[in-house]
Amino acid sequence: MRAEIITIGDEILIGQIVDTNSAWMGEQLGLNGIAVKQITSVSDDAAHIVNALDEAQTRADLILITGGLGPTKDDITKKTLRTYFGMGWRTDEQVQADVIAIFKRFGREPGEVNMLQAEVPDGCRVIRNKNGTAPGMWFEHNGKIFVSMPGVPFEMKGIMTDGVLPLLREKFSLPFIYHRTVLTQGVGESILAAKIEAWEDSLAALGIKLAYLPSPGLVRLRLSASGNEQDIRRAVDAKVEELLPQIEEWHYGFGHETLPQVIGKILLERGQTLATAESCTGGSVAQAITSVPGSSQWYQGSIVSYANEIKIQQLDIPAELIAQHGAVSEEVAAAMAANARTRLGTDFAVSTTGIAGPGGGSALKPVGLVYIAVASANGVIVKRFQYGGDRSRNITAATLSALMLLRKVVLGHAL
Amino acid sequence: MRAEIITIGDEILIGQIVDTNSAWMGEQLGLNGIAVKQITSVSDDAAHIVNALDEAQTRADLILITGGLGPTKDDITKKTLRTYFGMGWRTDEQVQADVIAIFKRFGREPGEVNMLQAEVPDGCRVIRNKNGTAPGMWFEHNGKIFVSMPGVPFEMKGIMTDGVLPLLREKFSLPFIYHRTVLTQGVGESILAAKIEAWEDSLAALGIKLAYLPSPGLVRLRLSASGNEQDIRRAVDAKVEELLPQIEEWHYGFGHETLPQVIGKILLERGQTLATAESCTGGSVAQAITSVPGSSQWYQGSIVSYANEIKIQQLDIPAELIAQHGAVSEEVAAAMAANARTRLGTDFAVSTTGIAGPGGGSALKPVGLVYIAVASANGVIVKRFQYGGDRSRNITAATLSALMLLRKVVLGHAL
Repeated sequence: MRAEIITIGDEILIGQIVDTNSAWMGEQLGLNGIAVKQITSVSDDAAHIVNALDEAQTRADLILITGGLGPTKDDITKKTLRTYFGMGWRTDEQVQADVIAIFKRFGREPGEVNMLQAEVPDGCRVIRNKNGTAPGMWFEHNGKIFVSMPGVPFEMKGIMTDGVLPLLREKFSLPFIYHRTVLTQGVGESILAAKIEAWEDSLAALGIKLAYLPSPGLVRLRLSASGNEQDIRRAVDAKVEELLPQIEEWHYGFGHETLPQVIGKILLERGQTLATAESCTGGSVAQAITSVPGSSQWYQGSIVSYANEIKIQQLDIPAELIAQHGAVSEEVAAAMAANARTRLGTDFAVSTTGIAGPGGGSALKPVGLVYIAVASANGVIVKRFQYGGDRSRNITAATLSALMLLRKVVLGHAL
Repeated sequence: MRAEIITIGDEILIGQIVDTNSAWMGEQLGLNGIAVKQITSVSDDAAHIVNALDEAQTRADLILITGGLGPTKDDITKKTLRTYFGMGWRTDEQVQADVIAIFKRFGREPGEVNMLQAEVPDGCRVIRNKNGTAPGMWFEHNGKIFVSMPGVPFEMKGIMTDGVLPLLREKFSLPFIYHRTVLTQGVGESILAAKIEAWEDSLAALGIKLAYLPSPGLVRLRLSASGNEQDIRRAVDAKVEELLPQIEEWHYGFGHETLPQVIGKILLERGQTLATAESCTGGSVAQAITSVPGSSQWYQGSIVSYANEIKIQQLDIPAELIAQHGAVSEEVAAAMAANARTRLGTDFAVSTTGIAGPGGGSALKPVGLVYIAVASANGVIVKRFQYGGDRSRNITAATLSALMLLRKVVLGHAL
């Protein structure tokens, strides 16, 4: 089955918003065995929309349309689809009730213009929208399926997840596809690929596909296979078990887990606590940790010691240590972690000190040099990292490295 | 002049990457008076690319193509364009030199496959790529312009900014368009629109367009006009001057400025310093501040006091104050800011304490309640905010509110 995505709205064409919907839909369709052939973004213009619909159905069986369903005059998708399919209007009582319920949540009553969302082309199947007033609309025409959804990402995602994807699985015998995503940090795609080459070569014979999904500091490995559910689950899971020992150094989780989530889960189970002491990452480690709901149960806080005086006064780093080795040094990183652990009274503490750039570098201590330390009851471990990015990438990379080193110490893996 | 954008590459269609290039190009073209009619994403497939090129030139005068220029076999854009325009190959010596120079930067020598980047269709004009090995290529065909660029964002942006946009301005009498963007924080689009309604109504007669560009916590107002440079500069600037007093409460800057940049500039000029004491924002204010290059010149650090014990021990908040009023209270916020200022020895300190959610809320202190305080030589000011978002949005909103309140105190505007 092949799909195309049509996004409608001038705000994408003028660059006011980045279209994140299409990537999400492309991934979700792919996970269900449906390939996306083309993504087309067009303006709020009836003739242009019609042209895009005409072209899409020559290439695809499923056409997903987002945007242009707001209550204002410049939103013309619904009108255009009604005319395109030669349908009349009908009032959908379920949508009426949903619109009233949504306004009620905010203690308000819908206006006339909001109630118009319940007027739909009479030949379409309505797909409920839990998160907004514009319903999804499913049309079947010339053996093709067209689905219109609002462009607001969380509304579209709800309609896809609860309505469109289940309906597609019900109506078509989509292949069963099994995916597992293995998460790694601290290794580039090419080094990782070289390390697991033999393992990767063994996948083809089993019908398992491997995708490298890199993002700054991380590489996700996604294994996919389709066929008999029980067989492919067993085959993929066995291959993952085979992979893990080979990438132990870099592997930290599966699926959508994040490093702070993984660390927090362990600490919470054990009733242990964590503190941070950040220099070059400037609060970025604390921010990543506190983005996890419930992190207050295991995370105590941070001393962001951007200036040397703060290191001296708030972290008891001896001024002589800084004078002798420099603030960016193994010795200062170690003292920051050890003292943060003592001062904040936690089981673990992680510290960062380095040169994020663009200024502050030298021949001996170039931009991108970062020392990271973790203190625990077993002592302090320090590692040196040299990144090659701009300020923002160096901070991101150092933040991930700090969390990764912390995870290893927490698990007793780091030496 | 009308443009279309064609992005080539399976990674967009399968949702592996979000296409941010098209939004950037759409904005840049718009700023130069060129409207984008359609954005089309197609796979690495010659027939599909040719079809997209055929269709695009029926609607547009300028077709910008990104992606598919890597050195590997699955990148077929260059070959496809050469065949499409019926051209031969030639070796471009400038590109050869550029490829060698780029590898030299990393102390390496280009391989055979990298040198192939210098083979280009013989009828195209090469546009140099400072940031990578694949050059931009400019084709003129049937009175239309086609430009092919790599998909790597910073390579594409360099080629557009240094090559394509100047060439377009040189070859075509593009209208002179003058833009000014006024930045606001802490006000929603609808309240802002109501407040400046009369002013906004006066713009049309002067040929000035206004766009509201909202993002979480911020609304940017972009004024645009085209015509005689001197006249429209004067008209737009006068209207901006008229606007500012009406939005004084929310206005903080222009163009691409960020709140931490605006604050840092003032502090740096005055030789003043800043500290932060964060609870619910968990390091997010520190992170926003330290994302500014050179912030170490005016930012000292933060006490991220996530746990009450850290507030008590590292910020000298009396335990009785927390017991009496709760950690999320006006009193604790004020004490956090005052004590951070004293302990870290800075001119200003800003604090946050609140309930980011999803847990921790109550009827009296619901999720989204945040107290923000700023301490200065003139004393401490505290404000109460109630946000209605999820954890991530509440943290973002509180971070921006904290920076905005800080800016007002620094400027002596806050009471």
